[in-house]
Amino acid sequence: MSVMARVSPLSGFPEWTPADRIVEASVIASLREVFALHGFAEIETRAVEPVGRLAGDSDAAKEIYALSRLAAEEKADARLGLHFDLTVPFARYVEEFAPHLAFPFRRYQIQKVWRGERPQEGRYREFYQADIDVVGRDVLPAHLEAEVAIVMARALAALPIPRATMHINNRRLVEGFYRSVGVEDIPGALRSVDKLDKIGSGGVRTELAAKGVSETAQDAVLELAKIHSRDASFIAAIDDLWQTSFTNGDAQAEKLFADGVAELAALVNAVNAAVPGTAVADLRIARGLDYYTGAVYETVLEGHEDLGSICSGGRYDSLVAGGGFPGVGLSIGVSRLVSRVLTAGLASASRAVPSAVLVAVTDEDTRGDSNAVADALRARGVPAEVAPSAAKFGKQIQYAERRGIPFVWFPDAGEVKDIRSGSQVAADARNWEPPAEDRWPRIVRP
Amino acid sequence: MSVMARVSPLSGFPEWTPADRIVEASVIASLREVFALHGFAEIETRAVEPVGRLAGDSDAAKEIYALSRLAAEEKADARLGLHFDLTVPFARYVEEFAPHLAFPFRRYQIQKVWRGERPQEGRYREFYQADIDVVGRDVLPAHLEAEVAIVMARALAALPIPRATMHINNRRLVEGFYRSVGVEDIPGALRSVDKLDKIGSGGVRTELAAKGVSETAQDAVLELAKIHSRDASFIAAIDDLWQTSFTNGDAQAEKLFADGVAELAALVNAVNAAVPGTAVADLRIARGLDYYTGAVYETVLEGHEDLGSICSGGRYDSLVAGGGFPGVGLSIGVSRLVSRVLTAGLASASRAVPSAVLVAVTDEDTRGDSNAVADALRARGVPAEVAPSAAKFGKQIQYAERRGIPFVWFPDAGEVKDIRSGSQVAADARNWEPPAEDRWPRIVRP
Repeated sequence: MSVMARVSPLSGFPEWTPADRIVEASVIASLREVFALHGFAEIETRAVEPVGRLAGDSDAAKEIYALSRLAAEEKADARLGLHFDLTVPFARYVEEFAPHLAFPFRRYQIQKVWRGERPQEGRYREFYQADIDVVGRDVLPAHLEAEVAIVMARALAALPIPRATMHINNRRLVEGFYRSVGVEDIPGALRSVDKLDKIGSGGVRTELAAKGVSETAQDAVLELAKIHSRDASFIAAIDDLWQTSFTNGDAQAEKLFADGVAELAALVNAVNAAVPGTAVADLRIARGLDYYTGAVYETVLEGHEDLGSICSGGRYDSLVAGGGFPGVGLSIGVSRLVSRVLTAGLASASRAVPSAVLVAVTDEDTRGDSNAVADALRARGVPAEVAPSAAKFGKQIQYAERRGIPFVWFPDAGEVKDIRSGSQVAADARNWEPPAEDRWPRIVRP
Repeated sequence: MSVMARVSPLSGFPEWTPADRIVEASVIASLREVFALHGFAEIETRAVEPVGRLAGDSDAAKEIYALSRLAAEEKADARLGLHFDLTVPFARYVEEFAPHLAFPFRRYQIQKVWRGERPQEGRYREFYQADIDVVGRDVLPAHLEAEVAIVMARALAALPIPRATMHINNRRLVEGFYRSVGVEDIPGALRSVDKLDKIGSGGVRTELAAKGVSETAQDAVLELAKIHSRDASFIAAIDDLWQTSFTNGDAQAEKLFADGVAELAALVNAVNAAVPGTAVADLRIARGLDYYTGAVYETVLEGHEDLGSICSGGRYDSLVAGGGFPGVGLSIGVSRLVSRVLTAGLASASRAVPSAVLVAVTDEDTRGDSNAVADALRARGVPAEVAPSAAKFGKQIQYAERRGIPFVWFPDAGEVKDIRSGSQVAADARNWEPPAEDRWPRIVRP
């Protein structure tokens, strides 16, 4: 029903009913709590960045919304654009605020981002992202690659969604392997493998061939992408592949590969030890972005695989061009997740308004008495509102019913009625308490 | 000190350090709580509206940021702009969602807005607003004009700011008076009087004269603007003025005036009864916007009058062009208020990170033990983080000190140290509690 209540005439710019906003707000509040309990500090960055900084990544440039003042004399503002993710602004923030931050800096950030994608793709043009990152100064211990994954796994487990599985790979492993089998354009090959789901192995082969990857190397690349396991057993499969693949004896590449294998095994084990059943070593995970240098993560929701990855990220050697800020981070696409929660009926709000109590008004002359009751309730943290007019009590009860307000208070009688059960009892606004589950709207799972 | 920590190279787009963001987030959380306790439901609207809808108000049009896709083939997106307030999008939301809303609809909305003002004016181009409105279907009882003012007065009183005084006027009173003394261009005269602070009475006279207002009428208009009182005593002054002013005997205008006087007196009394000392009847309050039809409000912060009005609004006959949605609302300029709180040192965060406890790491082999301590604390809602490296304990204590984390836990010894006092005691992570005031960062007033 909440689904039908949504009217969204601007394609790609979702808006919710008040009841659905309660679900979205509770998802955000839950994420904030888990992040903060793990010591992540919140920041917010401005919505705009210089276009030159945003457009650094070629694919994203097409999606940038540029700003111009409607009636501007100068065109200087045309060089500002809305951020399309929270990583670019975070990198700039770290650079600017570095003298005032303590490293490693653990931050979370939950804000809207904008992407001018073509509406027919059915994707959002404005949506919430929720990011966590830990950024070091010059160094960043490897155990933080496990920690961010564990925090995100716990954050996802606290939401009204099915089980999420985190698929993890390692860029060193992949790069070492690719180089060993003779792939030269590593970023190009990664971008092609990243499309495996969309274009299939045939499509990937065509792209790899166009990038000068030999057929033998294509075989090896596609075989590598088939390997996955919930523990370190992927190592046996990868060793088999290594033996059968033609490798060129590049010792540096081989070491990169071996280091990556060890890191990935340790990471998957650490995540599963903390949140059992969460992590899978999955060697098909490529991620399109060039700047990852260690772990890369994608997260799939059981029964909702069509959503694609709901939480992705990776380890990078430096967040900023000058170097010196290695980090690791993950990002949840909150709006798409909330949209799915609502449309699939995974959760809804117990009522559409905060009020637990509607204080009835007998006549306008005694509205002050009704206000006093409401104030006494509010003073003890019970959300309350006073009826807007002194209509017949039946009408006032209807007013509460339409909003899902569970209790109606009658100041004259000094009684409160649970309109669901019809039971009405004497009560004093200075000490009456609603049942804990009725105090605030709550999230109901079917 | 927190002031110096801010780097804001894009003029007009404020950003905060993590510690200052705690202050901003606590202000927003406090507003949300007060609004929700009074039964206001939260909504969020998309950041963009069709430019045609935004540009309806002539003055604001110059400030609109229009969007265009950087690499767009089509120019359709050029017709979208960022909202410059929350009223225009709220009106559109009410219109679209009306079948799914229960009226009167009480909503709050806290979001960023954007205004492309000239940077040299030193005003923000991106800032948070916090709005409450109650909108009816066809009718809206007058007592709601008091209620929104009372809710806002309580919301402001809960913030770390000095006493706020709400200056209230009534459009019917002003319009009836203006018409009675022969002013024809009422909206024009209101816009001129609204500039009284900026251009003085001489400037206002010049503008009024240009709009065809006679000298006698100018006298009357300026005399009216001098009247103010904290109770209904303004009525005596206004009656005196009425007697001495040349009025044209327009009976309809006279009734409008008398109704407005009665409404204003009742409103000021109701607000002061609920929140003593908050409201002043102030007949100089004009508000530049045409759509107000009843109460109009501006709010001044004691000792910070240079900020101008920190919370403004009014009563309108209809939020939408077609009519039928009368309402009343008030809006706080949150970012400017937070900026003043920070620069004037009215409040600061007790620490820059959420963690109450840093769990030390003896060596990397026992990091798991440290993680287990942190998890036991988090499970009971105590924010904790684990030291990023197994440095010497002195270094780890320094790490906590730099972030303001009050407690360091030593898993090997099974002890926790308050690094402020130096006192170290045996503790069990399954039941140890920090003092309540240390659990989360808190807002400290000097």
